[in-house]
Amino acid sequence: MSFDAIDVIVTKRDGGELSRAQIDWVIDAYTRGVVAEEQMSSLAMAILLNGMTRREIGEWTEAMIASGERMDWSALDRQTADKHSTGGVGDKITLPLTPLVAACGVAVPQLSGRGLGHTGGTLDKLESIPGWRAALSNREMFGVLDSVGAVICAAGSGLAPADRRLYALRDVTGTVESIPLIASSIMSKKIAEGTGSLVLDVKVGSGAFMKTIGRARELAETMVAIGVDHGVRTVALLTAMDRPLGRAVGNALEVTEAVEVLAGGGPRDVVELTVRLAREMLELAGTDGKDPADALADGSAMDVWRRMIGAQGGDPDAPLPRAAESMTLTVPGSGVVTKLDALAVGVAAWRLGAGRARKEDPVSFGAGITLHVTVGDVVRKGQPLMTLHTDETARFDRALRTLEGACEVGPSSSPDQLPLVIDRITAG
Amino acid sequence: MSFDAIDVIVTKRDGGELSRAQIDWVIDAYTRGVVAEEQMSSLAMAILLNGMTRREIGEWTEAMIASGERMDWSALDRQTADKHSTGGVGDKITLPLTPLVAACGVAVPQLSGRGLGHTGGTLDKLESIPGWRAALSNREMFGVLDSVGAVICAAGSGLAPADRRLYALRDVTGTVESIPLIASSIMSKKIAEGTGSLVLDVKVGSGAFMKTIGRARELAETMVAIGVDHGVRTVALLTAMDRPLGRAVGNALEVTEAVEVLAGGGPRDVVELTVRLAREMLELAGTDGKDPADALADGSAMDVWRRMIGAQGGDPDAPLPRAAESMTLTVPGSGVVTKLDALAVGVAAWRLGAGRARKEDPVSFGAGITLHVTVGDVVRKGQPLMTLHTDETARFDRALRTLEGACEVGPSSSPDQLPLVIDRITAG
Repeated sequence: MSFDAIDVIVTKRDGGELSRAQIDWVIDAYTRGVVAEEQMSSLAMAILLNGMTRREIGEWTEAMIASGERMDWSALDRQTADKHSTGGVGDKITLPLTPLVAACGVAVPQLSGRGLGHTGGTLDKLESIPGWRAALSNREMFGVLDSVGAVICAAGSGLAPADRRLYALRDVTGTVESIPLIASSIMSKKIAEGTGSLVLDVKVGSGAFMKTIGRARELAETMVAIGVDHGVRTVALLTAMDRPLGRAVGNALEVTEAVEVLAGGGPRDVVELTVRLAREMLELAGTDGKDPADALADGSAMDVWRRMIGAQGGDPDAPLPRAAESMTLTVPGSGVVTKLDALAVGVAAWRLGAGRARKEDPVSFGAGITLHVTVGDVVRKGQPLMTLHTDETARFDRALRTLEGACEVGPSSSPDQLPLVIDRITAG
Repeated sequence: MSFDAIDVIVTKRDGGELSRAQIDWVIDAYTRGVVAEEQMSSLAMAILLNGMTRREIGEWTEAMIASGERMDWSALDRQTADKHSTGGVGDKITLPLTPLVAACGVAVPQLSGRGLGHTGGTLDKLESIPGWRAALSNREMFGVLDSVGAVICAAGSGLAPADRRLYALRDVTGTVESIPLIASSIMSKKIAEGTGSLVLDVKVGSGAFMKTIGRARELAETMVAIGVDHGVRTVALLTAMDRPLGRAVGNALEVTEAVEVLAGGGPRDVVELTVRLAREMLELAGTDGKDPADALADGSAMDVWRRMIGAQGGDPDAPLPRAAESMTLTVPGSGVVTKLDALAVGVAAWRLGAGRARKEDPVSFGAGITLHVTVGDVVRKGQPLMTLHTDETARFDRALRTLEGACEVGPSSSPDQLPLVIDRITAG
């Protein structure tokens, strides 16, 4: 059936429901270039402002999956599980988590993205490892997954190409913050990726796309429903992103922290969330192998990490890039750290060179921020708060402006922060 | 000052007011191609759904005027007045009105457009006159206006170029029906055109953009306020577009009807509205010359028409194009005509070839519809209702489908139709 783009836009603009046929047509026509970018962007704004029903969201997701290929891991001798995070500041969990779950007997086919704006991208982080390459053919991806049990690579252009175009369009048209569009974008890629189980890490707080628990819960419930409707065992955790995760923010800095976790150390929150997500993935996949905490302690997760990095050309022993310049800020007062704002730290790291403003920009691998204190710490005025790293001293100024008021110290002994894991969302 | 397109979009998306600086920047950047089409279209959808304040609408209009040149008629020895109609079916009023007002002593610098969709365009109508050309340089336009007192021509590309781009964009992105965007589009062109007085003919009914009196009144009030704020004496009439205006719909057919009016004849509604609008224009311009009804009766308006057409290369005596094929429909029952739907007749004429689906399409000058009865007429089943004209017999079928149910005949002696002039809107 053929439609007119304007009719589809006007239906949604005027508060109506799109039919299955309208959705299939508009996604297919957009993929073929028949529906123009400016038409899809006004439709996206109408969807953002007028919403979509659960039926529409599911059908929109299916149409995006149908725009490309679907991967299939049934030839593997293991179950598969994957994790997706909605993105945050210092969120390097994918790095230790992927080899950890593999070490416990479940294969992880992790297709990741690059960072845009203040949240980092897993591929950017891994690319700070000399030699490591993100682009694998489907055959190479299967090979690494089969031999190592874990693979992190870039999604090929054949996977949900409609989503790829729509995501880039939303990014420049102020239409990112729509729960139906976010949910269908994430889930179309994850379902097309072919994972059997999926754990969603939905971040909440200033450094996350979802600023409130209510919005995060709505997104989580929407995504879990889509996953379950499409035969993927899916669970979501709502987790804290009011403060940065861990102590390192920036590409190579985060790889170093991930390796510390795999070596049995690392910041408590990163370890806790990594182990919790691993357990969720293993439970969904229905295996009862090794406990993740043991796999961190006995070095088996580290072994998988080294083989995984090596299989993609990376040298796990090579020194990582370091930024040329650094500057250390001090704590503004004495007392207890009551606030360390995730968004401010994320934007500052971005401005120091860790992130990109446009898709085609390079990132600085060494740039970023190392935190010396965290929320709840008892501190004295003048002790080190954080160290900024950059390749260009001119960037310090803009980062410093962003950080004004980012850290607060007060008399309180129980700072008002979100629990690390706020809630767990399952289907139904 | 420089802004980011996304910040401007998000401000409006989230229900905020755009600042003067944001508006100036986004219109200028759009004109220069720095703000992309897909960004402007999501902003347009956000404006459509979230509205704009009167201040924002005024500033948006000013920014569009500032994107191009402003015409100036102060070197003329007469006052200037213009009329703008929001568009309807059979609305050829500009054709007799322009020479009529000139014959009464006020110059009319009328910049017109082409038709798109079911409403016709004044330039398309005039182009059915052999030799007549729409494109004049500013110098030629001044020359015709100075010597003849009236000129109808195409707006040059230098006039409100931001509006030109935005209008084309809205047309394909489902963002036409926004009162702030319609009002600022019309008024930016009319203010840049440099007229001293302006009468707005805001159409109401099935064949108009504004389907209800409430919406039409809102548009009229918005436009009158913009005009007055910018030093243009402005009045609006709300007029009926539930049925076609006059008896002819289609380019050459409407020129013929306009000439009948200039010759002292023509359908009563066309004459009445032409004279009423002329009186409004003359009153606003502050002249007390000849009465328009007299100028129609004594042939002086016809004289101006002939000179105006001739000055732009047209032959006022040349036979007009006629369509190759015709088909006459009959009245469906006996009684009083209670309905003759403007939209159905407009769309049917369009499908017969009188209008265009895309900007680059040609129009058929001879195609259209001649009505033999009008609302309120007492009729007998089987008498002629309307004649369809087209160059391609294959077009009859689609037109006929559109016309199903367009005409209703009932026992009522007082059909439920809008008065020709519904209301008059002035500033304050």
